[in-house]
Amino acid sequence: MSEGISPAIDRLVDDLKRLPGVGKKTAQRMAFYLLERDREGAQRLADSLHHAVERVGHCKQCRTLTEEPLCRICANPARSEQGTLCVVETPADVLAIEQTSQFKGRYFVLMGHLSPLDGIGPEDIGLDELEAQLKSAVIEEIILATNPTVEGDATAHYIADIAESLNVNTSRIAHGVPVGGELGYVDQATLGHAFTGRKKFG
Amino acid sequence: MSEGISPAIDRLVDDLKRLPGVGKKTAQRMAFYLLERDREGAQRLADSLHHAVERVGHCKQCRTLTEEPLCRICANPARSEQGTLCVVETPADVLAIEQTSQFKGRYFVLMGHLSPLDGIGPEDIGLDELEAQLKSAVIEEIILATNPTVEGDATAHYIADIAESLNVNTSRIAHGVPVGGELGYVDQATLGHAFTGRKKFG
Repeated sequence: MSEGISPAIDRLVDDLKRLPGVGKKTAQRMAFYLLERDREGAQRLADSLHHAVERVGHCKQCRTLTEEPLCRICANPARSEQGTLCVVETPADVLAIEQTSQFKGRYFVLMGHLSPLDGIGPEDIGLDELEAQLKSAVIEEIILATNPTVEGDATAHYIADIAESLNVNTSRIAHGVPVGGELGYVDQATLGHAFTGRKKFG
Repeated sequence: MSEGISPAIDRLVDDLKRLPGVGKKTAQRMAFYLLERDREGAQRLADSLHHAVERVGHCKQCRTLTEEPLCRICANPARSEQGTLCVVETPADVLAIEQTSQFKGRYFVLMGHLSPLDGIGPEDIGLDELEAQLKSAVIEEIILATNPTVEGDATAHYIADIAESLNVNTSRIAHGVPVGGELGYVDQATLGHAFTGRKKFG
């Protein structure tokens, strides 16, 4: 047993381990669960994986993941009328922002960030396409919602330069103390941002 | 976006949510991860799922999950010589016991426990097969390693009765304070077991 359970189960466990946040124990639990109690679910999951990998590509306008030519947000005419374009790194960021219901414009999903050391340049994150959209479409403001990391900030600066050359307003989402957070638990950099980004009260 | 991301991704997220311990957020993260970064891994996982569901059945001797007629433990002749049979509820329990390297005999995997209210009787957990093995094979001792729950205990008692009628010794794994645990954090029932199951010291 030390060398594994059986070839088919070992292989399933190994492939489940590739999922983010899933280690050996969890993968074993998932494999046993599916084989003992939900074989139909396992078949359905296999079919969905095949289906998604075959069909899902990128939205031709905002680059997010979708199997349609245009994602649901880009296909919604009411949203492109807003004249604001929110630039994010990943499709998950789009979901997170959508959940706030605060933003009614369109997105542009970089599917990454500038990372010269990894050979990821402007074209790899679609900045040529973004520039073309800024030139052709009526976009009044770009909201830079890349991650507050070194790479995310660098990417935001790079995009801001492009936008400035095309006379499009840019803004960066606010960084500061999370709502409900306690100052004592907030890191130095965030607290620094919270001070430099302070606003008139009342 | 509130009604979902896109049909293929929504379907994948729904099917990933069937995995134990995976909620909506985690399922979305897994789906995005696979589609953005590891499509080959997604295909391989789909293939492993299909393969495992098609091939994996039960060991004809111990009932654990395996795609071979006999699982690796039952197929190991050295192990059946030991004359001890450890009865557990699930294949995961076998793995857990194997990791201790304390047991060198064979297993019998119930794939559940007696649960009259759910209509799970002795035949459903293979007790007829267990009785047949006790009659035919040379088994000196049955170790009852079902879970220390109401159903697990009831199942253990039921099996002990069968074994007694066939003059096979039975033992139950010890229940007590976990090694490394602190008494203050141990529940009442466990502490009760720890007292009634106390052993002479030194």
